[in-house]
Amino acid sequence: MYQYAHGGDIYSDNAVSNHKEFMDYSANINPIGIPAGVRDALKNSVSGCIHYPDPFCRELRKGLRDYYSVPDEMIYCGNGAADVLFRLMTALQPKRTLVLAPTFSDYEKAALTVGSRIDHFFLNEEDDFTVTPAILKAITKRTQMVVLCNPNNPTGKLIDRELLLDILTHCESLQIPLLVDECFMDFVQDEEKYSLTPFLSEHPGLIILKAFTKIYAIPGVRLGFCLTSDVSLIDRLYASGQDWNVSVLAQAAGIAALKETEYLNESRMTISVEREYLISQLRLIGVRVFEGSANYILIKSMHNYPWPEKLKNYHILIRDCSNYQGLSSGYYRLAVKTRRENRKLIKIMKELVKHDLINYIN
Amino acid sequence: MYQYAHGGDIYSDNAVSNHKEFMDYSANINPIGIPAGVRDALKNSVSGCIHYPDPFCRELRKGLRDYYSVPDEMIYCGNGAADVLFRLMTALQPKRTLVLAPTFSDYEKAALTVGSRIDHFFLNEEDDFTVTPAILKAITKRTQMVVLCNPNNPTGKLIDRELLLDILTHCESLQIPLLVDECFMDFVQDEEKYSLTPFLSEHPGLIILKAFTKIYAIPGVRLGFCLTSDVSLIDRLYASGQDWNVSVLAQAAGIAALKETEYLNESRMTISVEREYLISQLRLIGVRVFEGSANYILIKSMHNYPWPEKLKNYHILIRDCSNYQGLSSGYYRLAVKTRRENRKLIKIMKELVKHDLINYIN
Repeated sequence: MYQYAHGGDIYSDNAVSNHKEFMDYSANINPIGIPAGVRDALKNSVSGCIHYPDPFCRELRKGLRDYYSVPDEMIYCGNGAADVLFRLMTALQPKRTLVLAPTFSDYEKAALTVGSRIDHFFLNEEDDFTVTPAILKAITKRTQMVVLCNPNNPTGKLIDRELLLDILTHCESLQIPLLVDECFMDFVQDEEKYSLTPFLSEHPGLIILKAFTKIYAIPGVRLGFCLTSDVSLIDRLYASGQDWNVSVLAQAAGIAALKETEYLNESRMTISVEREYLISQLRLIGVRVFEGSANYILIKSMHNYPWPEKLKNYHILIRDCSNYQGLSSGYYRLAVKTRRENRKLIKIMKELVKHDLINYIN
Repeated sequence: MYQYAHGGDIYSDNAVSNHKEFMDYSANINPIGIPAGVRDALKNSVSGCIHYPDPFCRELRKGLRDYYSVPDEMIYCGNGAADVLFRLMTALQPKRTLVLAPTFSDYEKAALTVGSRIDHFFLNEEDDFTVTPAILKAITKRTQMVVLCNPNNPTGKLIDRELLLDILTHCESLQIPLLVDECFMDFVQDEEKYSLTPFLSEHPGLIILKAFTKIYAIPGVRLGFCLTSDVSLIDRLYASGQDWNVSVLAQAAGIAALKETEYLNESRMTISVEREYLISQLRLIGVRVFEGSANYILIKSMHNYPWPEKLKNYHILIRDCSNYQGLSSGYYRLAVKTRRENRKLIKIMKELVKHDLINYIN
């Protein structure tokens, strides 16, 4: 039976979803909520749903072109970044794909749909789960595709840009496409120091994956895209699936979202402040925290305390990371939310440590 | 450069889309418009877009279960029927696929993404483009998948049920899955005489493809599904792509749509009456009409008169069918719309015949 392997599944758990005040710390969504302009755009585009969507997302791609300063023929939009990811695999047909471990599991799932063999580059807890130069040796002439996630999920760790450029050069020398998932880069305060977007035009083997989902808090709408200067690949992406993958609603939401500059600044500021708050509070509680740069935090529980089950009693969902390749039980991921929610979470966690963890150990 | 090969592309043509009163006869959408209940459901689900969609579309599948009287484990929902079609190919990996010609071109496009060879069963104009028993011979032990469209697009022709059951039995004896696209069956007045849904539970090799797109006039939302009693195939469909392909908005729209019984009856009645009206009027104009049972009509122009270009001057789009395998220039498809629109279309066509066609011939 097929198993769903991600966070955010509020529908399967009535104990949570039927409770008005449930808090979903299992999905990494901007806690500020959907911007008003995006909300309005969604409502106003309902009547336009009587037509098929624009198969080429022309207006949205113009918006993205201006936002990222890349020509619009270098942009392909999909039904969420995940849709773009699966199409990339269909278009590229790698026979052997290198992915990090731990990382977002859909890279592997997508590569498997085209029959690819999977190689894992295991990240070590001793290195704080950062990508090290040892990855260069793991990318061999047998490798046909490399997928990185920056910042990585579920660790939040950024990849050093010098190392990233070394990986890119190495991939180029072997003629291997390098896919860098920057879906959570929008939450990084000094994004320009880490994103590879400025390197796109000089490196046709580089593909950057992006989403509207997380930063604009619209995972339910489905909108993502990729950027690459390999325009023949963009052409093959159109041929690798249906023409109408991006709904009229999603296109309207995306066009409106790109105008939300103030919302974006406020979001980054809030996430940065709240991440630090959560990290310091979690350390006080006595869990091991892996400091990251995204809108989520990986923790390791002492004494294998089952935080997810315990917090569920308080209508709080967190992400059990035991099904990640390269992690085991006891690792959990928490989204960064607003101060009101974070305070509530920490209060409950402290109470559990005080009154329940003791019994659990004994 | 990738070419879009369908109707309904109102975005590429400013002459049409910038005109307030443009009429799209190129896309086969219910002319009555989006039901009020579906409109409301879309607007009310905007705030729910802050969560990921239910990856298993549980509530929607319950609605479909009650509607079609099939167990919900026999239902898989996707981002439009086209999404389900591409996933079916990924899951089934046919090496050789038989499709009709002419028919909807995405069966072939989807089969090509998994490297399938395509065999065409050519329909003959002398047979009025109906499927004949000769197809049984075309399905051989080398065939690995058969795709039929009932009623067929662009002809609107239904396949005789006795013949369909013979095809199904033949496919079963060769262990070939049979996909029947019934996306336009909702418009057929005596649907129960033609649909294969009652035969699903006894025939695990049968897959029926359906859409909300056409009958509920929401192509911009993206919602389709398939039905099959092969539950292991359903499992593989989940594994063949991303988990969140059906948006929160689409799921809400679908749940609301299934309650629109009156709208459905009114739609079928209108389409039936208007199709007859259009057929009789088109015959008066002097074009050859292929009588079908769907919400569109295939015509053949006399003297190769370029109806699409001519009608575009009046802000009317029709579907040029010259890019269909098995058709050539001079074949056009027109949607069936409301009397007000149909009257306008016929009036303009009559004027063109009177004042322009003569010059064209001379």
